[in-house]
Amino acid sequence: MFKQITIIGLGLIGSSLARNIKQHNLAQRLNAIDVSPKVCEKAMELGIVDQATTSFSQGIQGAELVILCTPPGTMGVVAGAIAEFLDEGTIITDVSSVKKTVVKVLQEKLPDYVELVPGHPIAGTEDSGPEAGFAELFDGRWCILTPLPSTSIKAVEKVTELWNACGAKIEIMDMDHHDLILGITSHLPHLIAYTIVDTANDLEEDIRSEVIKFSASGFRGFTRIAASDPVMWRDVFINNKDAVLEILGRFSEDLSAMQRAIRKGDGDYLFNVFSRTRDIRRKIVERGEETLPSPQRDGKD
Amino acid sequence: MFKQITIIGLGLIGSSLARNIKQHNLAQRLNAIDVSPKVCEKAMELGIVDQATTSFSQGIQGAELVILCTPPGTMGVVAGAIAEFLDEGTIITDVSSVKKTVVKVLQEKLPDYVELVPGHPIAGTEDSGPEAGFAELFDGRWCILTPLPSTSIKAVEKVTELWNACGAKIEIMDMDHHDLILGITSHLPHLIAYTIVDTANDLEEDIRSEVIKFSASGFRGFTRIAASDPVMWRDVFINNKDAVLEILGRFSEDLSAMQRAIRKGDGDYLFNVFSRTRDIRRKIVERGEETLPSPQRDGKD
Repeated sequence: MFKQITIIGLGLIGSSLARNIKQHNLAQRLNAIDVSPKVCEKAMELGIVDQATTSFSQGIQGAELVILCTPPGTMGVVAGAIAEFLDEGTIITDVSSVKKTVVKVLQEKLPDYVELVPGHPIAGTEDSGPEAGFAELFDGRWCILTPLPSTSIKAVEKVTELWNACGAKIEIMDMDHHDLILGITSHLPHLIAYTIVDTANDLEEDIRSEVIKFSASGFRGFTRIAASDPVMWRDVFINNKDAVLEILGRFSEDLSAMQRAIRKGDGDYLFNVFSRTRDIRRKIVERGEETLPSPQRDGKD
Repeated sequence: MFKQITIIGLGLIGSSLARNIKQHNLAQRLNAIDVSPKVCEKAMELGIVDQATTSFSQGIQGAELVILCTPPGTMGVVAGAIAEFLDEGTIITDVSSVKKTVVKVLQEKLPDYVELVPGHPIAGTEDSGPEAGFAELFDGRWCILTPLPSTSIKAVEKVTELWNACGAKIEIMDMDHHDLILGITSHLPHLIAYTIVDTANDLEEDIRSEVIKFSASGFRGFTRIAASDPVMWRDVFINNKDAVLEILGRFSEDLSAMQRAIRKGDGDYLFNVFSRTRDIRRKIVERGEETLPSPQRDGKD
């Protein structure tokens, strides 16, 4: 499918992509760049890439497709570091959970003779690093592409083929729209999970140990989400500030209304909310989104 | 183990208990009372009880142990309805997620010659009704008992034996403490899940349908929790008002701090919170609470 692919950043997503590219023979040669020599060593040891290097010039040379798999906040530095080594027509794609700010910084730093196809696979677990990756991560998952007006259809098609070969389904979307939808479905849930687990963490020691003991009553699922990579998620919130603050504002209003209803003993209000929410669950089950493997690892919570 | 057990309320928990009592032969006779004739019919059809009736006098007669499995808000009415048919020394236990207000109302309505052993199995799924129950629901789960100073040790032992036979582990706890711990581990997570799903439900139709489509990115787990029984959960919040409002207050403060950090672009603050929360997850995994079956149905989210 490609002569040479270079993956930058061998974390959960990057190393899972590497495993897919190797397994399905999607490139004649697969290079990887990671700033950590240890990660490069590990990747070679796992045999998931042909070459792993800390050198941008060495890793990028000859790449027909470059996949940026580093946290959103590093995109500017990484794009700046590779810019001079890119050939005309090289396809650049990424996997960031945030699109608008990331694409802006990529456009600024990359030469205009490359083809930029921003992407975001809706997949992940709470684990990080090259050992955490696995080939099945993208099976049946959505991957959202947000091409620019200047992106060629051919480049979009090539990236689509790559993701399809990795088991993912493609959805094309506007960047702003992506950031809003993911703000609701992913960023706000993560923010809330991090917050509630930190609230519990701040409790007196004896209570905290019982919270851990009886975590199975609902809290446990939040702890799994709140174990996700801190650097990645810091960058997500900093880079999708507007959408997150907008949806967080709505959530806070709704939470205040719940608080008031509890304080006043307004059972009807609570019952009505609790009945409405079942409907969304029903639609998810009906759509079959429920039968898909979970992006957070299955069967644990 | 018992001559006769009467279960009141054949929902998820009541019907799961019934299945256990039958399967493990824990009573010579198992009666059930439910206000819904349909539910009684269904229970007989499923063969999970010897008799199912809408009549309190008929169902309660001869019971050595009565297990109250109706929502917390119904406890007063139910206790009032059975009071006159109870024999001296009959053991009464319940499964409510809230203990203090429920026990208060039970003490008011029940004769003082019965043995009250308040209980709460930390188990459940988002499904309701007699068909939703299954015998394995309590396997490896905690069941918290909050006996009163007047409760005899013998009665506590009998209820302990019952739960052990159903696969559960027993923890003895003070009522107030139970309500605080469960407020943190269960009630607040449910309140937040209901709220975020309702916030999403209130979005414009086109956005809502995409939220459902891309729910796997974090939101989906919340929808499962938010599909739990509305009556039960309304009663939980009304009855555990103080503990829920206390912990909700702390959570809201922490969420405001997060909001401010995002608005100001304070990545260090976010990173520090996100790093701390990993620690609680690690402790849950270390304790082995993670390897237990989930109280919400496994493997779906």
